[in-house]
Amino acid sequence: MEAKQYIEQNRDRFLEELFELLRIPSVSAQSSHKGDMVRAAEWLRDALLKAGADMAEVMPTEGNPVVFARKIVDPALPTVLVYGHYDVMPEDPIEEWKTVPFEPVVKDGRIWGRGANDDKGQLYMHAKAFETLVATGTLPCNVKFMLEGEEEIGSKSLYKWCEDNRELAAADIILVSDTSLIAWDVPSITCGLRGLCYMQVEVTGPDKDLHSGLFGGAVANPANVLAGMIAKLVDEQGHITIPGFYDDVRVLTPAEREAFNKAPFDLERYKQLIDIPDVAGEAGYTTIERTGVRPSLDVNGIWGGYTEEGTKTIIPSRASAKISMRLVPNQDYPKIAVLFEEYFRSLAPAGVRVKVEALHGGQPYVAPSDLPAYHAAEKAMEATFGKKPLPFYSGGSIPIISGFESILGIKSILMGFGLDRDAIHSPNESYGLDNFFRGIETITLFYKYFAELQK
Amino acid sequence: MEAKQYIEQNRDRFLEELFELLRIPSVSAQSSHKGDMVRAAEWLRDALLKAGADMAEVMPTEGNPVVFARKIVDPALPTVLVYGHYDVMPEDPIEEWKTVPFEPVVKDGRIWGRGANDDKGQLYMHAKAFETLVATGTLPCNVKFMLEGEEEIGSKSLYKWCEDNRELAAADIILVSDTSLIAWDVPSITCGLRGLCYMQVEVTGPDKDLHSGLFGGAVANPANVLAGMIAKLVDEQGHITIPGFYDDVRVLTPAEREAFNKAPFDLERYKQLIDIPDVAGEAGYTTIERTGVRPSLDVNGIWGGYTEEGTKTIIPSRASAKISMRLVPNQDYPKIAVLFEEYFRSLAPAGVRVKVEALHGGQPYVAPSDLPAYHAAEKAMEATFGKKPLPFYSGGSIPIISGFESILGIKSILMGFGLDRDAIHSPNESYGLDNFFRGIETITLFYKYFAELQK
Repeated sequence: MEAKQYIEQNRDRFLEELFELLRIPSVSAQSSHKGDMVRAAEWLRDALLKAGADMAEVMPTEGNPVVFARKIVDPALPTVLVYGHYDVMPEDPIEEWKTVPFEPVVKDGRIWGRGANDDKGQLYMHAKAFETLVATGTLPCNVKFMLEGEEEIGSKSLYKWCEDNRELAAADIILVSDTSLIAWDVPSITCGLRGLCYMQVEVTGPDKDLHSGLFGGAVANPANVLAGMIAKLVDEQGHITIPGFYDDVRVLTPAEREAFNKAPFDLERYKQLIDIPDVAGEAGYTTIERTGVRPSLDVNGIWGGYTEEGTKTIIPSRASAKISMRLVPNQDYPKIAVLFEEYFRSLAPAGVRVKVEALHGGQPYVAPSDLPAYHAAEKAMEATFGKKPLPFYSGGSIPIISGFESILGIKSILMGFGLDRDAIHSPNESYGLDNFFRGIETITLFYKYFAELQK
Repeated sequence: MEAKQYIEQNRDRFLEELFELLRIPSVSAQSSHKGDMVRAAEWLRDALLKAGADMAEVMPTEGNPVVFARKIVDPALPTVLVYGHYDVMPEDPIEEWKTVPFEPVVKDGRIWGRGANDDKGQLYMHAKAFETLVATGTLPCNVKFMLEGEEEIGSKSLYKWCEDNRELAAADIILVSDTSLIAWDVPSITCGLRGLCYMQVEVTGPDKDLHSGLFGGAVANPANVLAGMIAKLVDEQGHITIPGFYDDVRVLTPAEREAFNKAPFDLERYKQLIDIPDVAGEAGYTTIERTGVRPSLDVNGIWGGYTEEGTKTIIPSRASAKISMRLVPNQDYPKIAVLFEEYFRSLAPAGVRVKVEALHGGQPYVAPSDLPAYHAAEKAMEATFGKKPLPFYSGGSIPIISGFESILGIKSILMGFGLDRDAIHSPNESYGLDNFFRGIETITLFYKYFAELQK
């Protein structure tokens, strides 16, 4: 039987299995979900064994477990290591969901639910492509799986796991589906990822909330102060003002910029997709440059004082923010964290105390587009999409990818099948059925071409 | 029996009654407490009838009811109208309370609980002073009570009630205990109150939270934008930058400023009390000027994006803040609300939408210190504190006080017995037993001297 036919015949079961995985609320950011992390890992171990793995294990770490599995067809053949993550983003703001986040449903040809795309939907394509090749007797190489539960919170345990399991993880290439296509009719392979430096700050004034009438005007208000400090981090031109921040940014040559800007991009469609009156950002750069090759700084959350219904007349004792920066080659996230902290502290007026904490980070990554594995991905996508995929620089981060190269010495191919409309990290995350099934088929073809090209 | 003796003999019962009132969580800012507002009003009606009122009624309004009660000794005698409010501030942040907010306890000579001072503790002194005068047969004038349940949210219904009940409320003077003393050994009568203009703002960017990697750097982030807009509301010198904001501020003459700054004030004790490294505020003014005779602008609450444990890499769809301004004579709060909205909107960059809402406000008030009632208050406090009280300008606001003058044509005497340490509006609100019982005694003397001086 051909792979395509097998996938067609098992469509419903593949989906039912994915839904079981999606129902496990494996939110890594919230410690109340510790048990769900283990449940998801065990579920994946069992699923990979059923799919045809020789061995599959839930390997404990100091954090959430790593699921490792493999099928060694012949030690002389090349090996593909599949990476994915079973942890998902928190569901909040819960009131904006039109369906129940952890009760997936199919509607309008799409799977709706937290993790439908990121990354449960995408990683499960790999489990089912693997099953398809095993079941149809066409697996042309060795396969390993390395699935973690901390991607959304910095992959701390997987770095350690890689250091401790270099031999177990040994492979010729790492294959990852955790990225998006430029568009359904503009297939692409992600060649660049931004790095990340995620900070949390707290500004404290008085030791308790104060009556804003009795004290207002005489005491530094931590919420006003925090707003002022945040305002100073980015100037009117969209430049980040942290001294030294741009020192290591690799500046593109005019020829590179010209080539980069040739990628198809429809500004009106982009604005419409997210319903904004206009784009914004660093002066002198296009939108795709701003997200693809330039760093950014965003407040991810801010809170302080009275935030409920009605009015409360207080000077809050403290105000806090989560602030993260996306980095580009050759910025270094531990160095940026230090520069951020020094500068942020320097912005504080007398009358407040400041706390700065680095929550997590990762290095930027540039994937090579001249490897046999890249060409295998290119050929596989051309076969299923009918078009040669474009190389693409994503604004997102998968911090561990650069870790794979530095620790394991293995390059990664980022062949993802998501779309902008999937709203990953947002309420109403979804993933197209077409994307899911075409993804599975494309992955089976990747193995085929990869084995051929490695010969 | 003398008033003082009666108070002494009924100490425990007075406290038990107050505790019953404090146990009703009458939080006006939260609509879930609607039923508690009515419960508190009915409880006060019954308490005033028991204390000796001829009549007492819970009078419905469009919002929370007004409790009106009276005892007419002789229509020819002068009448004192007691004002107070039975609504309290929300208890949050609940985790900072050392006791249960609505389960009052006595510890270290103080009553601990939400409303212990503001204003249940202070208004109940009036109920018990009234009972004392009736029980000892020494009530020298007519007394009316007008107690509302919306002071903390702008007194909207009481303005309307006053317009509709001018005759019912007719009196020679309004007596209010909802303010503080300079210190226990520096008694004072509040002669000035700041006005209030309370706004809520919302900045919206994309129609949902976005992945901060995929979109970061290309989309205006509402939380960064809001921080920048707030930062522009007050300049480095502590001046509020809203055009026209200071136009109507009455500037004190050098002689007035000199007199004003003669009020006892200990900067080190002030900083220690609220544990701040330093004071802050408008350049060129002292701390007591900054809160007493100058306007201020404070963020009372700010929120947007992910505010839970850990990290979430999003650009929030929106960010909001509650921002209030304290006003001084002759600023007008509806005018300030308009100036704020115009200016705030003008600060918004392209790429976001802005919503501005005026939540409530009130005019500043200056109380006359040459009325017979002022002198009665002065004499009463001198008798119980052993010192002549100083006139004091408070930074706080009781917006309805200026409404009483404009609608009812009656002046108010602000004879409050609180202290800075009472932490009103904050976690761990408390009120000294000494303050409570000396307050009751002082109020009985006020009636005595007032009746004498009115003759």
